Amino acid sequence: MTDIPDPRQPSFVLVRPQMGENIGASARAMWNFGLDRMRVVAPRDGWPNERAVALASGAGRLLDHAGLFDSVPDALGDSTYVFATTARPRGMTMPVVTPERAMQQARAILAQGGRVAVMFGPERAGLENEDIARANAIISVPVNPEFPSLNLAQCVLLVAYEFRRAGDTTPPEVMELARTDFATGAEISALGDHIEARLEEAGFFFPEPKAEGMRRSLRQIWGRLPLTRADVQTLHGMFRQMVRWAETKQRDP
Amino acid sequence: MTDIPDPRQPSFVLVRPQMGENIGASARAMWNFGLDRMRVVAPRDGWPNERAVALASGAGRLLDHAGLFDSVPDALGDSTYVFATTARPRGMTMPVVTPERAMQQARAILAQGGRVAVMFGPERAGLENEDIARANAIISVPVNPEFPSLNLAQCVLLVAYEFRRAGDTTPPEVMELARTDFATGAEISALGDHIEARLEEAGFFFPEPKAEGMRRSLRQIWGRLPLTRADVQTLHGMFRQMVRWAETKQRDP
Repeated sequence: MTDIPDPRQPSFVLVRPQMGENIGASARAMWNFGLDRMRVVAPRDGWPNERAVALASGAGRLLDHAGLFDSVPDALGDSTYVFATTARPRGMTMPVVTPERAMQQARAILAQGGRVAVMFGPERAGLENEDIARANAIISVPVNPEFPSLNLAQCVLLVAYEFRRAGDTTPPEVMELARTDFATGAEISALGDHIEARLEEAGFFFPEPKAEGMRRSLRQIWGRLPLTRADVQTLHGMFRQMVRWAETKQRDP
Repeated sequence: MTDIPDPRQPSFVLVRPQMGENIGASARAMWNFGLDRMRVVAPRDGWPNERAVALASGAGRLLDHAGLFDSVPDALGDSTYVFATTARPRGMTMPVVTPERAMQQARAILAQGGRVAVMFGPERAGLENEDIARANAIISVPVNPEFPSLNLAQCVLLVAYEFRRAGDTTPPEVMELARTDFATGAEISALGDHIEARLEEAGFFFPEPKAEGMRRSLRQIWGRLPLTRADVQTLHGMFRQMVRWAETKQRDP
C-alpha cells in the first residue's frame, strides 16, 4: 500500500469547471484514494467556491491548497507529461490509453522524477481540442457506448482509483472456483432454518444472552461455505437422523 | 468489448437505500458500464421513488425493471454466489477480495451458469453483519484509510467499472517510456510560440481561413512529441538559423 498522501502523485487539473458541487465531489474522490494535489483553471463561479467547500466535507484541505490558474498552459507549466480525459478519442494523432494503463505510466514517469498532470474538462462540453492538443496522451474510460456520460467527479474517482490501484499491494485473495452446482440462497436459508429449529429443540442455544450471537454465527457458516446442492441434502439428512435417534432413545431409554 | 447490456451480468442489490438521489445515481453508474439488473430491498422512502427517477436520467429503464424486495434473503433467493461490499472487512471469517478480483470471479461463475449478486448497504451505516453473513465473500475497495467514505453511487460505479474491465478487450495502448529528461510544458509552449512567430513572418499560415487550424495542429505536434530539453534547444536553434539565412539572402540577393 502506498503512503497517504502519496509523495509522488499526479496533479489533477480541473479545466473551467462549472458547478462548485462537482469541484467539491472531485476533491472527495481524489482524497478517497490518497491524492491531494488539485489545480483549478478558470472556474466558472470564481474562487474560492462555497458550494465546493460544502461538498468537499472531509477533503476541504485539497481546496485550500488547490492551485488556481487563468489558463491551461499556466496550469501545465511545470508538467513533463500530461494526460487529457475525454469521453471518447477526438480523432487526434495521440496515444489513447485506458485509465489503468495511464496511471501505470504516470507512476513510471513520477518514479523517474517527472511531473504528471491529468486534465479533466468542464461538465457539459468536456475539454476543447485546443486543451487536448497540449496533452501527451488521451485517457479514455471504456464506458457503455450507449451511455458514456460520466460526470466530472466520477471521472476523477476512476482515475484516482486506478492511480492507487497501480501502486496497491493488497492481495486479490485468489479463490479456487470448482465447476460445481452451488446451492441457491433460498436453499441455504432453508437449511439454516432447519438446522436452527433442530438445535433449538436440542437446547443448543444456551445461555439465552448468547443465543442470538450463536444463531448468527451459525448462519454465517452456511452463508460462507460454497455448499453444493448435494452438500445441502446431506446436511438436511444428518439432522433428520439426529432427531430420529433422539426420538428412539426417548421411546426406549 | 462485451455486449451492451451484458447478457451474463451480476444483479446489484441496494439494501435499505435511503436517498432516492443515490438510487438514481447508482442506476446511472450501472448503465455507464452496461449493467441493467438492479434490485432494491426495503427502500426507506418507498417505491417507486420520484427523486430516483429524476436522478437516473437516461438510465430510468433500470428503475422501471428493478426488482423490489422486502428482505435480503428474498432478494438473494436465486443467487448462487453473493458478494457484500463494505468499507472495510468486519472481522468475519470470509474471503475478502478486491473489486477487480471479485468481478473476475463473478464472470467465471456466470460463465459456469451461476447467478451472482452484489450487495450494497445503506448510505450511512452500510450493511449489517446479518446481511454480510449471507454473502460468500466481501468486496473491499482499497481506499485511503484516512478517508474511506465512498458514497453508494461511487461504490456501485467502481464495482460496475471492474465488471466491465474484466470483460473488456480494449488495448491498453502500451507505450515505451525511455529514461529521458523531458521538456516542461512551459518549455514546449515557448518553443511553440517561437516557431509560430518565425513561420508567421515567413508567411507560412496561409490562406487566412486555414491559419487557425494550421496553428493548432502545429501546437499539437509539439504537445504530442515526448520532446527532451535537448530536442527543444535543437529546434530553437534550427529556426534561429533559418531566420539568419533569410536575412543574409535579404542583404545580398
